[in-house]
Order: sequence, then structure tokens, then C-alpha cells
Amino acid sequence: MKGPIALMTDFGLRDPFAGIMKGVILGINPSAQIVDVCHDIREGDIKSAAFALFMAFAYFPAETMFVIVVDPGIGTERKAIAAEIEDKIVVCPDNGILSWVLHHHELRKAVELSNGRFFLPKVSGTFHGRDVFAPVAANLSLGVGLQEFGKEINEPTTFAIPEVAEQGPGIQGEVVYVDRFGNLITNIPSERLPDKARIHIGSVEVMGVGKAYGDVPQGHAVAVVGSMGCLEIAVNGGDASQMLGASIGTHVVVYEE
Amino acid sequence: MKGPIALMTDFGLRDPFAGIMKGVILGINPSAQIVDVCHDIREGDIKSAAFALFMAFAYFPAETMFVIVVDPGIGTERKAIAAEIEDKIVVCPDNGILSWVLHHHELRKAVELSNGRFFLPKVSGTFHGRDVFAPVAANLSLGVGLQEFGKEINEPTTFAIPEVAEQGPGIQGEVVYVDRFGNLITNIPSERLPDKARIHIGSVEVMGVGKAYGDVPQGHAVAVVGSMGCLEIAVNGGDASQMLGASIGTHVVVYEE
Amino acid sequence: MKGPIALMTDFGLRDPFAGIMKGVILGINPSAQIVDVCHDIREGDIKSAAFALFMAFAYFPAETMFVIVVDPGIGTERKAIAAEIEDKIVVCPDNGILSWVLHHHELRKAVELSNGRFFLPKVSGTFHGRDVFAPVAANLSLGVGLQEFGKEINEPTTFAIPEVAEQGPGIQGEVVYVDRFGNLITNIPSERLPDKARIHIGSVEVMGVGKAYGDVPQGHAVAVVGSMGCLEIAVNGGDASQMLGASIGTHVVVYEE
Repeated sequence: MKGPIALMTDFGLRDPFAGIMKGVILGINPSAQIVDVCHDIREGDIKSAAFALFMAFAYFPAETMFVIVVDPGIGTERKAIAAEIEDKIVVCPDNGILSWVLHHHELRKAVELSNGRFFLPKVSGTFHGRDVFAPVAANLSLGVGLQEFGKEINEPTTFAIPEVAEQGPGIQGEVVYVDRFGNLITNIPSERLPDKARIHIGSVEVMGVGKAYGDVPQGHAVAVVGSMGCLEIAVNGGDASQMLGASIGTHVVVYEE
Repeated sequence: MKGPIALMTDFGLRDPFAGIMKGVILGINPSAQIVDVCHDIREGDIKSAAFALFMAFAYFPAETMFVIVVDPGIGTERKAIAAEIEDKIVVCPDNGILSWVLHHHELRKAVELSNGRFFLPKVSGTFHGRDVFAPVAANLSLGVGLQEFGKEINEPTTFAIPEVAEQGPGIQGEVVYVDRFGNLITNIPSERLPDKARIHIGSVEVMGVGKAYGDVPQGHAVAVVGSMGCLEIAVNGGDASQMLGASIGTHVVVYEE
Repeated sequence: MKGPIALMTDFGLRDPFAGIMKGVILGINPSAQIVDVCHDIREGDIKSAAFALFMAFAYFPAETMFVIVVDPGIGTERKAIAAEIEDKIVVCPDNGILSWVLHHHELRKAVELSNGRFFLPKVSGTFHGRDVFAPVAANLSLGVGLQEFGKEINEPTTFAIPEVAEQGPGIQGEVVYVDRFGNLITNIPSERLPDKARIHIGSVEVMGVGKAYGDVPQGHAVAVVGSMGCLEIAVNGGDASQMLGASIGTHVVVYEE
């Protein structure tokens, strides 16, 4: 694959872990094009990582190799995998990280990373980002075919993607991601929003869907269509997650006025 | 423009937003040279972004394209612009981000970004970094001329830059930036400092201008000439902003001893 | 040197300081390959920086130029140096940052950075990352020889590396690094661990050395062999540093069961 290697981890920037992955990649392929997507996914938060990957996936060029290391089960029996999804590859632990992407994009092939020839000589029990995922991505970027890394698996592990339901008068959805601003991204697509919407989240009611966070006074809740085309609840100049006590999984109901 | 694309945002590294901008850029120009300046500007803090851009501006090579996304008014009527300033271009919302740079550097031309041909096909209301600013920068890096992006505007929006005043016995200035260490950068240039200075900030008095933070014992306030050539108040090994209760706008007065 | 320039600082990502270093490098060598290792080393924490550099050192390719700016003594009499260590170069303040690397890797040559020809024209008292270290690294990447930057020094400054001791029944070591997860990395190499180990740290006893953080229930302490081959104490899904009240220097004793 000739595209960039895009790194997403929960390693933060306090420690050199994300940087070490880059060193390993450049040691194998000095011309690899490495891109930091983000390194501050909440620690071990597979659900957020899965949605963050989904948000990024379609906006990267063909042949991108994503390396996602959010890996609370490292060292346990969870597999390490590489999955060809449409025209890109994702290298990651097999722990659900692909759930959102596979809900919207087509899996072409997935393999278990078992061929130690492409790992660092000594694989630690606690840092597969360095010892497994980075060298595999670097080898992919050198043109090694997916089938070389291990035998095909049928189904990467996924968790259930929450579905939007219409029962009774309202449309029921939920918060699927909370960003650093505290904005609450839901799974309710804009196409399903009535012209005049009344939105319930927790004990709060938001009237109408605005065009911008700034449609309401500072400190007020506002509903907008977010950058993924779904309903998003925000607080202008504030943190909706904190102010509404909402997080991933919080129910959201939309009524027609 | 052949220089690097330098990104500065308030997106943080928790979410993939800054990374997505890079994906968009590489999709349009696979050889673009992307540089992260910083992504943790305080949320929506235009004043800090404007000074941070000013600090960085002169130290980047000719033909750099800065992309600055600190955009609390996204989706409202604020314009999106690109400004040629000396031998560089800044792409940003027209919300004051250019204030400090334009106070010190010459504007050659500014255009409103209105030609949708250079945006992503679908422009969201909440993520112009992805849909507008990144693709515009990528197209600039491919050699598209500034005039192609929209019609010229006369004056980017700016806020008033605080001036240093000499009234009565002292030189009056103020804090214009607080860095992550809590150091207080003022607008008082070193040339205006008397040989023997006595500095008042809030209720604290600092005697003399040292050469290094380490000139005073740990935990003590110290005045130095900062890296922009202006008076800076710090606490050796501590956070001056917290310890002195000072922030952007706090008055600083320098007396000759 | 033809390798990447790898940056590690305590500048954080709030301010443009790390980004400015990149601008300076690209102004001198537009084809320099710049890699962020990490920028959120605890402020002024030389011990953590020294260990972080050691963790990264062996995983970067030959001819890498590390630039490490954790520099609480900036502007004081501490030297600025560049050290050729095996097949790499480290550019940094001479404040102990090389301690761990030089304990494990061979110093070939070190010079004091004194030849102002390779600095920015005006060297500030507070930002040598921009004015000294970045331009020196850029010049190294252009092929300037180490001896051009200043006269050789014999011994970079180092602090004492804590040794593992065997007195009486147990093996005595200590915590040498705490990562962002709160995992406690010790200096006790896995080779010295008995088959059945009982580990004391503070008032806590951990039984046995597991293979993975997930070997114990959530919230329980676990001992593993960490990614540097040494004993590491963690809490599954938690922060061992906080929960055990341990930090760099905390004693760890391993007994045979």
C-alpha cells in the first residue's frame, strides 16, 4: 500500500510510546508517510476509538493504513488483526475497534497477525503497538500482501451498533460519542429529523435544530446537525456532556412539535 | 505555494478532528508536507490563538501555509478567509486570529473563501476545518492562486492590540499570553525596560529583570525577557498565572527604581 | 546524518513552542524528516525525560537525531550539548537527560554547542529549543559534522542510575518511570525475578508475575514484565501510581515465595 500510515492510540503525549511506534516504522520503511490522527483516546475506551476511526475513515485517501492501538486486553487471548476495508487497511487488536467502520463500509478481507517474521524479534506482553502493529504496518507500506501476515479470519469482533428506533410518537436514539468540547454526537441521522423537532436528552428539552452552536446564547443547549450528518447536542461555549450529565449510551428522543 | 502546511487548532488530541484534516489534505495533495504546530489552544480562545500564530509566524519558512482553526463562531455569519501576509498564507475563520500578525507583518492580499469548488462536496455546519480550511490549504499547496478562492476583502477582522503606555512614572502594559507553564508574556518590549526595573503585577512586586527563570529560588517570581523580546513574569518551577492570579489582560506596570 | 529528527519536549500542545522548532528546522533544511516523539513530559522533569529517551532510543533507526528539550535550567550556566551515542545523535541541555541512555549505550563523542554560527541570529534566554537546539539539529541533518558545533567535552552530566541490590532475602529495586496510565516501571530486570515472586511496593503485596494487565480482575494490582524487560506494577483498568501512592523512587522488593 502506498498511502500514509495513520496512527490513533490512547498513549497520550506524556510518554514516548506513540513516538516509538514511529521509530519502528521508519526503521523498516524510511520513506513511510506517518500521520498522527490522535493519541489521546480515553484510556482503554474501545467504543470511542471505534467511533473515532469511523469519523476519520472516509476522509483519508485510498491505501491509507490505519494503526489503532487502544488495547486494554493486551497480552490476553485477544487476536491482533489487519482488515482490508474498501480501499484501506486497519491494523488493530481484535476487540471491537472495527465495529462502526464495518457497520458502514465493506470488509474485503481480514487476517490474524500471526506470522512472527513481521514482528520485532522480541514481542513484549505489554506493548504490541511497538512490537506487532507498527512493524506490520511498515511491512504493509513496503508492499507485503495481507495474506502474508497470517491466516484469514471470517469476522472481526464487533459490538452491537445502537439502532435508531421509532416507537410511539418519538424517534429513539442515543449518544454514540462525546468529543473534547463535550458535544454529544448521536446516532440519529439528519434525514430522520422532523422539520420542527423537540429533543429530549436526560431531563433537558431542546427546541428545534439550529445551524450553528452560536444560534443560542452562551451557556444554552443547542441541537445541530453534526459533521457526521447526525443530530448533535451541544452547549454554546460550554460542555454539554457535563452540563446535561450525558455520556455514551444516554438516550435521546426526538418528537415532532 | 511549496512550503509546509502548518496546522494550529483547539481540537485537542482526544478526537480525530485534527487528524481528519490531514487525511483530507493528503487526499488532495499526497505530497503535502504537514506540520502540527499545536492542537490544544484553549477552546475557542481567539486571543491566545492570535498570539500563538504571531509567535510562530516569523519562524516558519517562506511559502508556509498556516491553517488556524479556533472557530467558536462556526456556522454563523463569520467569513472564512485566506490572507497572504508577507511571504506566507494564513487560512482561518475571519474572527480576529490575524490581529497580532497583522500588527507586525504586512498584509498583501486577503480573500473570502467562497468558491465551493475547493471545498469538500458537502460542507457541514460544524467542521469547516475538514470541509473548507483543509481542502483550501491543500489546493494552495498544489499551486492554485489566492484569487481563485473568492473575492478580495479589504480588511480581515482584528481586535485592538493593547498598546504600551507611559503615563506618570511607570510604563503600563499588560499580559497578552499565558503559556502552559503559567508564564505571563507581556506586551512591554525589552527596549523600554529601565536598567533597574521594579515591576508591579496585581499585588506582587518583582525586582529587576533576570536572565533566567533559575535566577531566583524555586517558587519565587522572576522577570525575564521572554522569547518574543518582551517582558515576561514567571515563577521558577511554578505557575505564575495561578500564583499571581494573572491572565490575559492583567495590568503590568514597570517603574524605574 | 540522514535519519529523522525526533523531538521530545515538555512544551505541551497548548502553545506553539514545539511547532516553532519544526518551523525553524524546515527553514534550514526543507527536506528534514521530523518526528514527534512526545511533547508532554512533565514540566521540567529531567528524570522522566531521561527514561523516556532511553525507552525510545533503541527503537529509532540509525542516524536519528533526537532533540530533547526539558530544560528547567535554561538561561543558567548549564551547557547545551550534542552527543553521538552509538549510531545516533542526541541534542539537548546538559542536565542529566542522557543518564539512562549512557548507562546502556556507548558514548562516541560529545560536544558543547558553542559555535553561534549554527544558532538563530538572536538567542533568547528562555527558548533554546527554537534558537539553539532546533537549528543545530537541522544543520546536523544537512551533514555538518559534530565537531563543527563546538569543542569536545569528556562527560555529559548524568545522575546516578539506581542499581538493583540483593541484600538479605529480597531483591531491592525502585520505580524509575510512571507512565500516563499510572503503570510503575521498575529497574528490576525480568531475568532476576524468581519463578514464584512475591512483590512488595509501599504497603501493598502483589503475588506472582502475570503475563497481561488483564490477568487480574479490574481494579486489582498486577505485576508483569513491562516493555523494557523489567518488572512493572500496574492496576488493571486503573492507575497504580495513584492507588498505591507510588512514584519515581518508590522502593520495590521482590521475595521468592
